Amino acid sequence: MKFKIAILGTGNVAWHLAPALEEAGHTVTEIYGRNLAKAVELTKKLYTTEAQDSLDFSESEAEIYILAVSDQAISELADALILPEESILVHTSGSVSMDMLGYSSASYTGIFYPLQSFTKEREIDFTEVPFLLESDDQQTLLKLKKLANSLSPLQYVVKSKDRMALHVAAVFASNFSNHMLRLAEEIMHRKGLDYEMLKPLIIETISKSLELGAKKAQTGPALRSDLNTLELHHQFLNYNEQVAEIYRLISQDIIDSY
Amino acid sequence: MKFKIAILGTGNVAWHLAPALEEAGHTVTEIYGRNLAKAVELTKKLYTTEAQDSLDFSESEAEIYILAVSDQAISELADALILPEESILVHTSGSVSMDMLGYSSASYTGIFYPLQSFTKEREIDFTEVPFLLESDDQQTLLKLKKLANSLSPLQYVVKSKDRMALHVAAVFASNFSNHMLRLAEEIMHRKGLDYEMLKPLIIETISKSLELGAKKAQTGPALRSDLNTLELHHQFLNYNEQVAEIYRLISQDIIDSY
Repeated sequence: MKFKIAILGTGNVAWHLAPALEEAGHTVTEIYGRNLAKAVELTKKLYTTEAQDSLDFSESEAEIYILAVSDQAISELADALILPEESILVHTSGSVSMDMLGYSSASYTGIFYPLQSFTKEREIDFTEVPFLLESDDQQTLLKLKKLANSLSPLQYVVKSKDRMALHVAAVFASNFSNHMLRLAEEIMHRKGLDYEMLKPLIIETISKSLELGAKKAQTGPALRSDLNTLELHHQFLNYNEQVAEIYRLISQDIIDSY
Repeated sequence: MKFKIAILGTGNVAWHLAPALEEAGHTVTEIYGRNLAKAVELTKKLYTTEAQDSLDFSESEAEIYILAVSDQAISELADALILPEESILVHTSGSVSMDMLGYSSASYTGIFYPLQSFTKEREIDFTEVPFLLESDDQQTLLKLKKLANSLSPLQYVVKSKDRMALHVAAVFASNFSNHMLRLAEEIMHRKGLDYEMLKPLIIETISKSLELGAKKAQTGPALRSDLNTLELHHQFLNYNEQVAEIYRLISQDIIDSY
């Protein structure tokens, strides 16, 4: 099943998603950008797509409209869009409720959320991206499943109320684990030590965690309740009160959870 | 340069290190275990190694004695060891000072610390393990470099005072990043969501972080100072005060560091 799709947005998600949809055989009819130049830039990666900075899609041939914009912009943009009859409007956000599309002119609404961290410079293999889907309309949900399935075998139907939990979990799994690496990097640089030394450990830790589960994979002074080492490390970190407190709190949480 | 080596300890490090040393052409003369049965089990992986539960090595042919035991046990074991003339005693710990070997009967002391997370069930590729070395004696340091070099091209000379910083950094990079995955897993399970959904995100996050550096790789609500989302997430976590506080504190630290 091939779809005609308009994409609203020119950020990282749109940048990767639009060419992937085309490669999967769909037609990307229009790219909307508030900044027309950015929309034009993205259409250069595509075959016959028009760039536009107007929200009037009444003449568009697209059936599915994908809002790939920042969370803050979703509601306002959805309300202002002029869409043709029988159109489906979806957004790609992990943290915005489907209700935010409720006042749009779309006939049907839904969520089409690729659960991945997109960066312009890095290629994304969509076959390994889980798509989280939602719609109150069964026909729409079926179409979103078919659309997702054309990109990836990983599809999950997740309701808005659970998407919040999922997003919080993703913050821990992605943003916070990355911040732990950042703090490690800073401690190394502070002492003139080469951060490269830690990379094999990081790779093995994450591989092991994904294979055995994080609980079983844990090691270190907090797991051993080695209070002497914890105290030494805490003192070492006294040049940055906030980081010392992060050390104390996470160590305590590890101790409490075994 | 091939060495005769005795290994003291039967834990995860000894379990992987002993066969690797043999494969690299060295001779593992003895395995010491307080629990003799465990030492015997490890010798079964080796060619001609003797298991022993005595600390008397006066008759041993080994030149290098590797203390691969828990941090707590190092000092006591070092003091009690009876070693032959001209022997080198090293330990494999990231967090114990070289001074702890100072009262031993060894002629020379040093550190031979493989910076990796060892688990019995998982194979370790030693060519990707950084070895952190230290000795006050230049001849000993040279021997330790040669020994490490027979296992891995990654060798660093790091003094005890810097090893503390390195260990703190490793706790953030390994134990704490793993704990972030654990918290993510728990949030998912609490809502009956499949943790598998998050794995592609985790793999991409860590790959990106190691490639671009953690600062540049960061994304998420804290980076965007999206206080509305942060507040919603914090409320969502109110079933566990400590985890909510971890969320708040790490988010604050991300906000403060951009």
